[in-house]
Amino acid sequence: MANPEKKETHELRKTIHCIKVGIAMTLVSLYYYTNPWSNINSQGAAMWAVMTVVVVFEFTVGGCLYKGLNRAVATLIAGCLALGIHWIASLSGDRFEPVILGLSVFVLASIATFYRFVTFIKVWFDYGVTIFILTFSLIAVSGYKQDTLFTLAQQRLYNIGIGIFICLLVCVLICPVWAGEDLHLLIIWNMEKLANSLEGCIAEYFKEGGVLLAVDEDQEAIIQRSEGYKHILSSKPSEDSLAILARWEPGHGCYGFRHPWNQYLKIGAAMRLCAYCLESLAGCIDSQTQVPESMKRHLSEACIKLSTNSSRILKELAKCIKFMKKSKYIDLLIRDQNNAVKELDRALRSLPPMEAMENFGCVSLLEGRVLITAASLLIEISARIIGVVEAVNLLAE
Amino acid sequence: MANPEKKETHELRKTIHCIKVGIAMTLVSLYYYTNPWSNINSQGAAMWAVMTVVVVFEFTVGGCLYKGLNRAVATLIAGCLALGIHWIASLSGDRFEPVILGLSVFVLASIATFYRFVTFIKVWFDYGVTIFILTFSLIAVSGYKQDTLFTLAQQRLYNIGIGIFICLLVCVLICPVWAGEDLHLLIIWNMEKLANSLEGCIAEYFKEGGVLLAVDEDQEAIIQRSEGYKHILSSKPSEDSLAILARWEPGHGCYGFRHPWNQYLKIGAAMRLCAYCLESLAGCIDSQTQVPESMKRHLSEACIKLSTNSSRILKELAKCIKFMKKSKYIDLLIRDQNNAVKELDRALRSLPPMEAMENFGCVSLLEGRVLITAASLLIEISARIIGVVEAVNLLAE
Repeated sequence: MANPEKKETHELRKTIHCIKVGIAMTLVSLYYYTNPWSNINSQGAAMWAVMTVVVVFEFTVGGCLYKGLNRAVATLIAGCLALGIHWIASLSGDRFEPVILGLSVFVLASIATFYRFVTFIKVWFDYGVTIFILTFSLIAVSGYKQDTLFTLAQQRLYNIGIGIFICLLVCVLICPVWAGEDLHLLIIWNMEKLANSLEGCIAEYFKEGGVLLAVDEDQEAIIQRSEGYKHILSSKPSEDSLAILARWEPGHGCYGFRHPWNQYLKIGAAMRLCAYCLESLAGCIDSQTQVPESMKRHLSEACIKLSTNSSRILKELAKCIKFMKKSKYIDLLIRDQNNAVKELDRALRSLPPMEAMENFGCVSLLEGRVLITAASLLIEISARIIGVVEAVNLLAE
Repeated sequence: MANPEKKETHELRKTIHCIKVGIAMTLVSLYYYTNPWSNINSQGAAMWAVMTVVVVFEFTVGGCLYKGLNRAVATLIAGCLALGIHWIASLSGDRFEPVILGLSVFVLASIATFYRFVTFIKVWFDYGVTIFILTFSLIAVSGYKQDTLFTLAQQRLYNIGIGIFICLLVCVLICPVWAGEDLHLLIIWNMEKLANSLEGCIAEYFKEGGVLLAVDEDQEAIIQRSEGYKHILSSKPSEDSLAILARWEPGHGCYGFRHPWNQYLKIGAAMRLCAYCLESLAGCIDSQTQVPESMKRHLSEACIKLSTNSSRILKELAKCIKFMKKSKYIDLLIRDQNNAVKELDRALRSLPPMEAMENFGCVSLLEGRVLITAASLLIEISARIIGVVEAVNLLAE
């Protein structure tokens, strides 16, 4: 499994995609150039193959299949409908013909556009509806006679088929990029990022308190690691679009045809809930309010333990998804996490009373509050991680 | 200004858009049907007008302009380039001609696809690059002689121009939908939603504490109002796409040609920071932990005051953006907010010490912690609102 998040892998995939587009275009162009039909019949026919390749060829196999199947089916349906309307119009005489044709285009274009707003159609058939309008209008109002039109429509369909075939051939045979696999990997990496961020944030916060953590890492790497959660905040659109395309893909690798891609979205949503909390936590930590070392030290161990435990659960879940099997240790880890929560609660409980805290000298309640909030959010995050565990368990089933 | 968020307005806009598509398609189809060229010359030429309308007609004026201009310019550039390559290939003899043409398609399609990954090109010219590849391939490998090709290219460009003209005409003249205005309104409504959510969340939380708030509203309306912030969490994609399209729009209404649409994105981002915190706050409140009434009552007034103040600032900002002028009261409101923060801090400070709290009977520290966290997050939100104020001030400049 290649890591699409890694910069070099990403660059390589882009380059391969560019070459694939070049190959597909060259194949179809040479077919067009050498096709005997392009000389004996209207140039329009074989041209459709070229056009199909340009608009159908997508980065992922799912994208290619979505557009290809939509284009083929929409062209077929619109073609039949248009031929029917054309036939009816031609029967009604020269006077009414343009009226019937114009009206049919108006009504069908309006209705089809309306369906583009329906969520189900928008997700599955948006491109198909566009092609439906295009094909219908082109055929319905072409000036041709019925029999010429029939041959033309046949040719066009045949050429579109050729275009789709070339697209799929190149897309699937040369280093295929599967949307499903990308979604799978995206969720895994986001989960690992979340785990690292959570651990990194807390480690970074308590580091100054004398407890030196992650000594072998430099400052910048830690900051970069702790900010990984920001990717999760903004990754909903990519997850959604990958899940939509993944549904079009046939079984590949270890994913079956009806792999529950929707469940990945639920895992993504559960992770985002954690990320929102982590964002608030990071906000608290960044808030420049210096908490006195003694108070920090008091909570440090329990906080670090809880964050390490939570992070371990996330890493274990990531591993579960990666190898697609249930984890043996997850219940144990959750028990550990519960213990860590209790320990942090005990640590909070044994904080000196607010009044007494001010005797530390430099600390106002506002400062103590930041620490309590951070601990509180940490507990909230660990509760939300249980939501992620549940979502992953549902996927495992 | 129509409210695109309102359901009826939204439905009306959709219906009008459907009718507009129908009108544009009918206009171009009738033009195609009655166009003398479609009989004397290849059907291919006028067909381009129909195709242009189908793919260029978009919901917003910005979308129409983006696609229209991209299509026109890309066709022109690709056409010139392809004619040049075709001429060179025709000079090199029958044997090398297909090789040169095939190679040029391969190289140009690959390079153009590569540029689609560059962010700047992706944002501004993605559609243009697709059309470039399409036009170049179609012309470069067509079997026509140089002079026929030139006439054909001219006709095609002319027809594409007609298509774009019809699109823009219908799009701008019949109830135009401006992406810029939509973005403007989206930001305003999101801001109002955030203000209402913030107020609603806190009011809902402290309501049970004997302080009855919003007596004239039923439970469901309050819940719906408090959940408005969820829209903000997921509105980044719509904001981004509207801002991209808005840049293509000429001056309209009270927005100039170079209206700082990017600044709206910054306001949106600042609001999202507040929404993340509010999400955590809502999580705390939902966490089923019952805080004893006496403790709640102790903080209730200060919390409600701060949330009302913060909400007032957001509403004032929304008004500022709506009427595009600087607010006279904002400094006053910020001062009020600062006072409210101090008051809440004082209230927190005067909480009985942790130990003593347990004497209330039902309260463990875990429960008291939720209240302190909620107050803390409220203070963090009010700090983040200052970020929104700064972003709005930048827009005002």
